[in-house]
Amino acid sequence: MNRAGETGAADDSGVGNTSLVQDAVLAFDIGGTDMKAGIVLGGLGGEGGLGGEVGLGGEVEVRDLQRHPTPLDGERSGASVCARIVELTGQYRSAHPELKISAVGVTVPGIVDEENGIGVFSANLGWKNFPFTATLTQALGLPVGFGHDVGMAGEAEFRLGAAVGKTDVLVMVIGTGIAGAVVCDGKRIAGGGYAGEIGHAMVPSPDGGMAIMESLGSAGAVARRYTAATGTPVAGARDVLALAAEGDLAAKTVWADAIDALAFSVAQCVSILGTETVVLGGGLSMAGAALFEPLAARVDELLTFHRRPHYVHAALGENAGLIGSALKARSLHAASAEEGTA
Amino acid sequence: MNRAGETGAADDSGVGNTSLVQDAVLAFDIGGTDMKAGIVLGGLGGEGGLGGEVGLGGEVEVRDLQRHPTPLDGERSGASVCARIVELTGQYRSAHPELKISAVGVTVPGIVDEENGIGVFSANLGWKNFPFTATLTQALGLPVGFGHDVGMAGEAEFRLGAAVGKTDVLVMVIGTGIAGAVVCDGKRIAGGGYAGEIGHAMVPSPDGGMAIMESLGSAGAVARRYTAATGTPVAGARDVLALAAEGDLAAKTVWADAIDALAFSVAQCVSILGTETVVLGGGLSMAGAALFEPLAARVDELLTFHRRPHYVHAALGENAGLIGSALKARSLHAASAEEGTA
Repeated sequence: MNRAGETGAADDSGVGNTSLVQDAVLAFDIGGTDMKAGIVLGGLGGEGGLGGEVGLGGEVEVRDLQRHPTPLDGERSGASVCARIVELTGQYRSAHPELKISAVGVTVPGIVDEENGIGVFSANLGWKNFPFTATLTQALGLPVGFGHDVGMAGEAEFRLGAAVGKTDVLVMVIGTGIAGAVVCDGKRIAGGGYAGEIGHAMVPSPDGGMAIMESLGSAGAVARRYTAATGTPVAGARDVLALAAEGDLAAKTVWADAIDALAFSVAQCVSILGTETVVLGGGLSMAGAALFEPLAARVDELLTFHRRPHYVHAALGENAGLIGSALKARSLHAASAEEGTA
Repeated sequence: MNRAGETGAADDSGVGNTSLVQDAVLAFDIGGTDMKAGIVLGGLGGEGGLGGEVGLGGEVEVRDLQRHPTPLDGERSGASVCARIVELTGQYRSAHPELKISAVGVTVPGIVDEENGIGVFSANLGWKNFPFTATLTQALGLPVGFGHDVGMAGEAEFRLGAAVGKTDVLVMVIGTGIAGAVVCDGKRIAGGGYAGEIGHAMVPSPDGGMAIMESLGSAGAVARRYTAATGTPVAGARDVLALAAEGDLAAKTVWADAIDALAFSVAQCVSILGTETVVLGGGLSMAGAALFEPLAARVDELLTFHRRPHYVHAALGENAGLIGSALKARSLHAASAEEGTA
């Protein structure tokens, strides 16, 4: 009776030979120059996943992070990228016999139809309506979590990072350009792949006209505008900030213009969506208090009876996109496993 | 056998004595001066309702529409309004023995916590954190569909009106002021009660600074700004439009400023949310092509690779709010009936 009981317990737990092999997701973040790859472990909670409720627990770990050149091939870049993903998946499998790669996550830039797994358009990478999910699912025989790079990073910050438990969130990644992810009432907005393009929204410009937001507020714009104003080349926005701290007037003006542009867009989100949490990521967010404090003050001036948002630093760093696509891939894997047992 | 068959059929259809009494929702739209009441019939499809999927069918009818002064009582206005709703519900019941009022819908202006049924704040009506749903549910013993007036109107346009089948929608009601409702990925956004305040978002103003959007784009602003510019009093925005059509330069400028302000806000929504459909309601929307055509053209200038939205006239007229709250009330009634039979 005792032995039968033990056997039953072992069966119920599902523990067998496979217990030595850990389930993992291999994630890819496709950029205009490089593609990153890495194994994402942990942080994925039990069931639920992206389709379910907020609050997946556990520490997340990215293992064996690699960078490779993105195979650029004009309009055929989609197929080339997929072929490279298949090749790298084989290499990761050989290199990590201790892991069972049970799903793949992929993020791409541009306009992305996440629902149908299609890269609609990318100016830098060249594809038009390329079916990433279908191509990779067929080639790999695995569930594929496919999404927009900043969208997936935002999703990761919302599920595991700086905005856990918040329902109305704007994630802004401020680097060379500016991209955003928008969470409303506890769900990230897709808008058919067109949501989150806050860097390309109009804002009032210092000359009294209008400008694209990222032409004033991005790290790239801060450096470029300082050089244009003074003729002095700088390595990046960090130098401009240092000069502003020393009292350089041109640097202070360029920085104030950037804050005005960012604040204007934040205030639009608050007015239209009731945004309560602003997550700032990307290179410019490293400015810390020099960014957060004047930004909050300027947003405040642009609002009346509205909510006042909280500002937090992105928590998951530059691997947020990998983690987000892995979360999505894992939830698809869990769903297909459930179907399999049903 | 024939008779038994007939009896069975009658039982299955659920037709009995109650079939002579039609289920109806009594809806109230509470404004700063008047409160509207009306019986909402039809248009409510089968199950589903507000919580379910898009696509409720059938013609909607508002019967015995009444207007009464809103009982204004400072901070106690919430209680006074509820008392009046209870009183009017009794009157409607007496006057309509052919109807069974099975649920009540209520819309209010201001900041509204729909999830918890609370009127958070209304500048015109005076309440602060008044528990409308709890108060009315207790007093009436009926399910109460409670919501923001423009939010419920937007919901009705999305479910039954101008935006049926669309997933990314901005509803703008342009009257004395401007309020909005935002639908993203097929769900209206609440933002804790703070979403949709597009009339209070900042836009670039003609003097090179910034202004609250409704101070330039509303019907009230158009009339007021024309009079301020010319010293000539006008009855409303309609007069200004007529003057613009005749070539009056000040009227043309004021109208162009209004278009610029409205277009700026529409373009913000498109950039941030991928809005595909813009529903225009309220008095100013009666301007028709004089509004729609320059608005679409101006929005187009403010966008680059973004979606281009379609513009449609609100379909449900000034009773959209009543209809929206009735839809919500009906879905709550259906849900509670289902619980009762489970």
